[in-house]
Amino acid sequence: MSRLKEQTIRSETIFEGRVIRVQLDEVRLPNGKTSTRELVKHTGAVSVMAVTKEGKMVFVRQYRKPLDKEILEIPAGKLEPGEDPKECAARELEEETGYRAQNLKPIVSFYTSPGFADELLHLYEATGLSEGEANPDSDEFVERVELTLEEAFQAMESGEIADAKTVAALYIWHNRVLTEK
Amino acid sequence: MSRLKEQTIRSETIFEGRVIRVQLDEVRLPNGKTSTRELVKHTGAVSVMAVTKEGKMVFVRQYRKPLDKEILEIPAGKLEPGEDPKECAARELEEETGYRAQNLKPIVSFYTSPGFADELLHLYEATGLSEGEANPDSDEFVERVELTLEEAFQAMESGEIADAKTVAALYIWHNRVLTEK
Repeated sequence: MSRLKEQTIRSETIFEGRVIRVQLDEVRLPNGKTSTRELVKHTGAVSVMAVTKEGKMVFVRQYRKPLDKEILEIPAGKLEPGEDPKECAARELEEETGYRAQNLKPIVSFYTSPGFADELLHLYEATGLSEGEANPDSDEFVERVELTLEEAFQAMESGEIADAKTVAALYIWHNRVLTEK
Repeated sequence: MSRLKEQTIRSETIFEGRVIRVQLDEVRLPNGKTSTRELVKHTGAVSVMAVTKEGKMVFVRQYRKPLDKEILEIPAGKLEPGEDPKECAARELEEETGYRAQNLKPIVSFYTSPGFADELLHLYEATGLSEGEANPDSDEFVERVELTLEEAFQAMESGEIADAKTVAALYIWHNRVLTEK
């Protein structure tokens, strides 16, 4: 058995929401002591890096209630239980920005905040974009924004780009540009 | 007023833990309809990119209860309310890895999961490392691991490196290496 693993003694659901489920676990630590762990259960999410043929990345401006402000993010959305991440990525890209992708390639998947949440985010790269009509969900209000690499890094400096997946996407994009040179 | 903003009608605390507070808000959407928002409140966190003079990045292997597995992450820790992020970064680096940094430079700060959480993570770069003794918290069990850039990307491929801050740190590190060439 692992020397680092914690054994669950007791597990209690505290809250069952539309987006998250909150669970409080009592655990036995590797040193034999007990502690509690606060867990946020989430079905996971997808996000899409999409660069237009003009060399601009596609973002959406969105009000985020937890932050009480608008930020610029790459298109993203929550997975429904059992949903195929790639299909979800294609749908979210089109709904939020109007762009359809000929190809969607998985780049990397990561846990957004492994200390308390199990949310796994799948990042895709969209290529072969064609433009249609955006069609966001009825309770989703987003505005499409397109930025060059330089503009995007400026937006990160100014705090307009401010979330993990979008920051990671910018560095991945920059690395592509540096490698292709 | 912003066309995207949501107005809070009612706010209720569902759970108050040691690490998170869970809040359920009723909001008025830009189209006048109402909806609910599930919010996880968190005091924020710090993390540290530290590259040794041998050119290896410093990671910790840690069991994460929400994932029920061990992953490799850059050293990190939760901020206490009002705590200075830089002091927290220095402390977490030393406690978890034994390394002291002569300099800690802020690289970028990002929200880990802005759809439901307000956790803001501050990423620092440590330079001028000197080695001492690791001294983790009593309920924290971590093992130090050092990897080259190539090994770190392999660990990401294999899923051992699997969280947002560490993935971002790897691409930032790669970016540095590409730019310095």
